[in-house]
Amino acid sequence: MTKQSLHGQPIYDPSRHRMRTFSDVRQAFFDGTDTPTDYLERCLDTIAQKEPTIKAWVTLNEDNARQAAEESDQRYRRGDPLSPIDGMPIGIKDVLQTRDMPTEMGSPIFKGRETHMDSASVNALRLAGAPIVGKTVTTEFAFVVPGPTTNPFDSSATPGGSSSGTSAAVGAGMVPAALGNQVVGSIIRPAAFCGNFAIKPTLGALHGGEGLSLSQLHLGVHAASLEDLWAVAHEIAQRAGADPGYPGLFGPAHLAPAQRPGRLIVLETEGWARCDEMTQSAFHQVLDQLNDQSVTLITRRDDNTIERFERAIEASVILCRIVCSYELRWAFRNYRDTGLLSEDLCIWLEKAEQLTPQDYRDALQQRETMRQSLRALAPLADAMITLSCVGPAPPLDHLADSGEPGYAFKTGDPAFNAATSALGAPAITVPLLGIRGLPAGIQLIGQAHSDWPLAGHARWLMDAISPVSVS
Amino acid sequence: MTKQSLHGQPIYDPSRHRMRTFSDVRQAFFDGTDTPTDYLERCLDTIAQKEPTIKAWVTLNEDNARQAAEESDQRYRRGDPLSPIDGMPIGIKDVLQTRDMPTEMGSPIFKGRETHMDSASVNALRLAGAPIVGKTVTTEFAFVVPGPTTNPFDSSATPGGSSSGTSAAVGAGMVPAALGNQVVGSIIRPAAFCGNFAIKPTLGALHGGEGLSLSQLHLGVHAASLEDLWAVAHEIAQRAGADPGYPGLFGPAHLAPAQRPGRLIVLETEGWARCDEMTQSAFHQVLDQLNDQSVTLITRRDDNTIERFERAIEASVILCRIVCSYELRWAFRNYRDTGLLSEDLCIWLEKAEQLTPQDYRDALQQRETMRQSLRALAPLADAMITLSCVGPAPPLDHLADSGEPGYAFKTGDPAFNAATSALGAPAITVPLLGIRGLPAGIQLIGQAHSDWPLAGHARWLMDAISPVSVS
Repeated sequence: MTKQSLHGQPIYDPSRHRMRTFSDVRQAFFDGTDTPTDYLERCLDTIAQKEPTIKAWVTLNEDNARQAAEESDQRYRRGDPLSPIDGMPIGIKDVLQTRDMPTEMGSPIFKGRETHMDSASVNALRLAGAPIVGKTVTTEFAFVVPGPTTNPFDSSATPGGSSSGTSAAVGAGMVPAALGNQVVGSIIRPAAFCGNFAIKPTLGALHGGEGLSLSQLHLGVHAASLEDLWAVAHEIAQRAGADPGYPGLFGPAHLAPAQRPGRLIVLETEGWARCDEMTQSAFHQVLDQLNDQSVTLITRRDDNTIERFERAIEASVILCRIVCSYELRWAFRNYRDTGLLSEDLCIWLEKAEQLTPQDYRDALQQRETMRQSLRALAPLADAMITLSCVGPAPPLDHLADSGEPGYAFKTGDPAFNAATSALGAPAITVPLLGIRGLPAGIQLIGQAHSDWPLAGHARWLMDAISPVSVS
Repeated sequence: MTKQSLHGQPIYDPSRHRMRTFSDVRQAFFDGTDTPTDYLERCLDTIAQKEPTIKAWVTLNEDNARQAAEESDQRYRRGDPLSPIDGMPIGIKDVLQTRDMPTEMGSPIFKGRETHMDSASVNALRLAGAPIVGKTVTTEFAFVVPGPTTNPFDSSATPGGSSSGTSAAVGAGMVPAALGNQVVGSIIRPAAFCGNFAIKPTLGALHGGEGLSLSQLHLGVHAASLEDLWAVAHEIAQRAGADPGYPGLFGPAHLAPAQRPGRLIVLETEGWARCDEMTQSAFHQVLDQLNDQSVTLITRRDDNTIERFERAIEASVILCRIVCSYELRWAFRNYRDTGLLSEDLCIWLEKAEQLTPQDYRDALQQRETMRQSLRALAPLADAMITLSCVGPAPPLDHLADSGEPGYAFKTGDPAFNAATSALGAPAITVPLLGIRGLPAGIQLIGQAHSDWPLAGHARWLMDAISPVSVS
């Protein structure tokens, strides 16, 4: 029986919570004891039950998903599935184009807009046999202003953003996996708020699609397990490839075996100072367990290279704002002229209009310096560890200080995420924490292109570390 | 009086041909002896006269252009123009989005498609006060299959491609400048065929827009003079910025002063061996003049570093095919499913489907090696010089051997252009050659980010070198 909070909602317990996984049940498709169609119908049942509260979806296309699942049934019946994700129902963040559904980007400007195209990643998923269930809610243009989605574990809390619907859909067990993307904190933060596994891969590893032309846009995967996560990422990489000019996701088709990291760098980032005591305490309990498992933990106090790195990344949130607002100012100008752009994005545009080409060059140079500082850490440890969020999901009306006048973050503070976005480093969040009955995440961060071994460390973490609940 | 060819068409003579320039007549807008509206009307008259034969335009928006010109009139009347290109009528290659015209990308798939958006570069031009006259014909998705455009100097010859309408419109004096882009040979080659000045800037220097997600897509400018060319490029750089993640175009607002290069590397590239004797002879006449002007010319026979570079770039055409077909295969798959993709692009897709992620990585690595070889040349010379095309514009039905079975180049051979596209190096073509009564170009190539001094060398070339006609 699920424990109930004072408000009658289920309390999230990371040691008990079970998600709707796919890879581990898929074997039953081969012997016919389960089918992709039955799996999909269970997903659709959960959606029907929970969607009125959670509001994760902008558009559902049940007919097309059912047809894709039936075709998948036949392939399994013949013993000939297209891929390890054949039959896996997937949700698509509504900034990515889909040929059978509108792509609205969280803006009334694009209400009902049909592009009749599949983004590279969606094209890859279809070729791999995955039924596309629908489009998930995003904040406006994947920036600040939230859609209607609520947190699956507390309807008065944010699911996080910008991949709000993606996170909530996976967290609520509506689908085993969904696509999101991150330019500041949009994958790892909402995934942590909703108890998901998620990967923000190395920059460029997965083709991010058209329509949001940003130099630090990362396409990533939210999933119910690390196996599901890796399978989806790998299929996209194989069938759609990388962002143009990038070498793509490295690693074989199977998830890396669990691998204990010998040494981990414990990162503070901008997040630690903004983190509540309870979440800090939960993180310390994880670190204590790592110590017990003979993982050597090193921090900025142990090594000057780490101290230099922490200083290099300490203004990442504002750096991300400068980079992203400058890169999209031409689009914001177009949107503003429609009269349908939010106040918040108008403020981003105002700030962007004050930037010169030299300011942008300086920001790129600062980002490159950060990336050099990251590479200098490579000899010191197998990976880095930190929190995924400054605390559990705040209330829907919470305004997180952005550090700049004029706008606030409305789907939680990205202070633990902006650095990895700017760095282009791979990050994986695992749902190991429960804080006051809500999920929070532990984040592993690697060097560029270490996605596969990083997933192996994440797997070890799930095997070796007991989930921590504090309240 | 213009000399006539046997077929009754005017023979192009580079020493006599005058284009419709803008910067040098603009002064008259301030004293009221000329106005942007009058200038535009002269452009529209030329369009009305020549368009039935040349077919440079997919869409014209004369009303909006006239309105923009009237607003420009008022600004000059007040002595307060927005920029040096305020009032300059400009054409836009129809792969770039325009809010007031469809963006069809040379494909029936996108016939009449309105995006209601201006691409970054178009947004910049409007903010700078330039009336947008219309959309110029492109080959299908800026690849192989040509549109209806003919060469302004021979209606039975190709204008080149993919920026076919852009080149022809500028070459015919319909507009003083137009935008194009290049991933293989699409700016420099057609500009040479049509007698234009054009710049393919350093990779990423000008925001290339959405919709063709290619790692070596360069936005560039065709113009009637180097002054016009630089003014347009500079305004785009200032107001729209670079491609995301790139530092953008370097250099002040004014065209560089004419600067004699002390040393030039004479490049063969893949083009020299594919070049006819008459064009080779014309190029040698230019080199002889450079010698006479005490410019030191060095070749692969003078320096091993140059020899290594020539070898590094000798398979650039096929490298470009691999990179571009892999990067757009997801889009080609979408297009193919409509049944409206050309046979040629279906072949590109077939070839792309045979490529693995590792093949793509190998191609990127080869490209990076080429770029390193280019950087090694920096100490040797001020710039590089070669032809812009293997000869004058071939007939409309000419098939240029691609070096691969299955497809041919239908708007001329890009053998002198593929290398600079892969290298991301800036290239400028100047109309110094007449071959059998048709234009051809001399190409200057620089190190990355040397666009501004390169334009200064191009300016010196126009001042110091007599145009060469051979027939």
